[in-house]
Amino acid sequence: MQVQVISSVNEACSAKLYHKTAIIVDVLRASSTIVAALAAGAAGVIPVETVMDARAAHQPGDLLGGERFGRKIPGFDLGNSPEEYNIETVCNRRILLTTTNGTRAIQKSMRADHVLTGSLLNASACAKAAYELRRDIVILCAGSNDEFAVEDGICAGLLLERLRTLSTAPLELDDFGVAMLALYNDRSQHIAQTLQIGTAGKRLAKLGYKRDVEWCAEIDRYSEVPILRGDTLICC
Amino acid sequence: MQVQVISSVNEACSAKLYHKTAIIVDVLRASSTIVAALAAGAAGVIPVETVMDARAAHQPGDLLGGERFGRKIPGFDLGNSPEEYNIETVCNRRILLTTTNGTRAIQKSMRADHVLTGSLLNASACAKAAYELRRDIVILCAGSNDEFAVEDGICAGLLLERLRTLSTAPLELDDFGVAMLALYNDRSQHIAQTLQIGTAGKRLAKLGYKRDVEWCAEIDRYSEVPILRGDTLICC
Repeated sequence: MQVQVISSVNEACSAKLYHKTAIIVDVLRASSTIVAALAAGAAGVIPVETVMDARAAHQPGDLLGGERFGRKIPGFDLGNSPEEYNIETVCNRRILLTTTNGTRAIQKSMRADHVLTGSLLNASACAKAAYELRRDIVILCAGSNDEFAVEDGICAGLLLERLRTLSTAPLELDDFGVAMLALYNDRSQHIAQTLQIGTAGKRLAKLGYKRDVEWCAEIDRYSEVPILRGDTLICC
Repeated sequence: MQVQVISSVNEACSAKLYHKTAIIVDVLRASSTIVAALAAGAAGVIPVETVMDARAAHQPGDLLGGERFGRKIPGFDLGNSPEEYNIETVCNRRILLTTTNGTRAIQKSMRADHVLTGSLLNASACAKAAYELRRDIVILCAGSNDEFAVEDGICAGLLLERLRTLSTAPLELDDFGVAMLALYNDRSQHIAQTLQIGTAGKRLAKLGYKRDVEWCAEIDRYSEVPILRGDTLICC
């Protein structure tokens, strides 16, 4: 099985995704929020690129969620903190979600055969689901401000480590995958600290979302794996 | 001191280089070849982008060196194997060098205040020279075929490790720097093996240059540090 890792959403192109399973990783915070929402019983999460798209697609009973510059969008029901997406708020509701990088990465991955979202919160389940789809895999790190984000890289490395355990044959990694696996191996005992020293983690702490950064650092809190069906992410 | 790491030559832009010291890293093989040439007493190495540029700049006594698709260029005196650049061949000679990525990376870095080239072969000396120039530093990994190359990443990590030892204050690393330092920490006992499993290492082995891949994996063989003066790389 070949596994490639793409360093940021800017580096993604359709040619790299054809006939593959794509795993979109945006640890801070879109892919953490999406899995939290589905684990809390949301009917589905629809990733949309713009605030206007979100409002246009809104139907009675839907929730509007997302952020711009890290903050909740005026008039929206929810921001981009995973903890907001709890059972009381989201159960059986459809969510229209727009975030700066994560939803753009999902949109860019549409050419893949399967699109999953992965985070530290569901890494083991996500690796297993991707492995069982029996395609070569591309892990697309969403990044932050069009640059590589270390929290996405460490999550990619964790996914590779889990895939390696599952696979009977050695994985064929590209150079960036080799580097991300090494990143995870070196920092596996310091995951939360690594998120805190990253650019996005520091920015979120400044905005008052330090608790989100800690919360998104937990490994395998959830067994749910979001998968794209049509335009909607549902449980795999 | 701030230290940024750029993942491949495609990601380099002038804005990231102003007022900085740039260290160009192309372990397989341009920056290894350049330091070998200067350590063997070459009068200077002039990086040029095209074969035509190299021929146009050639003066009596100069040597033409470089590669395309890994192989020596027809009519050139030397290829891109560091071992070719020995005392008998290059001492006191000026070398016009054109390679696929390394020389392009050097050309792209001209806006920096200082441009050094770094490799595993001269990592400690290069880190020391860069540190003593008292500017913020950008390590530009040349990469291979417009993609990140793991051997450049591990060399960037080694440079960061050496800079960290030299610096009295903590280094301010960007996210990619954090990842490359972790890559080096995880793989520091397996440097040669890491070069061999990388895409460029495998390609060079197929072309018959396995010996170059082993040779370029040696740490601190040289104390020379190439620095750009005008259009020519000389010893720092």
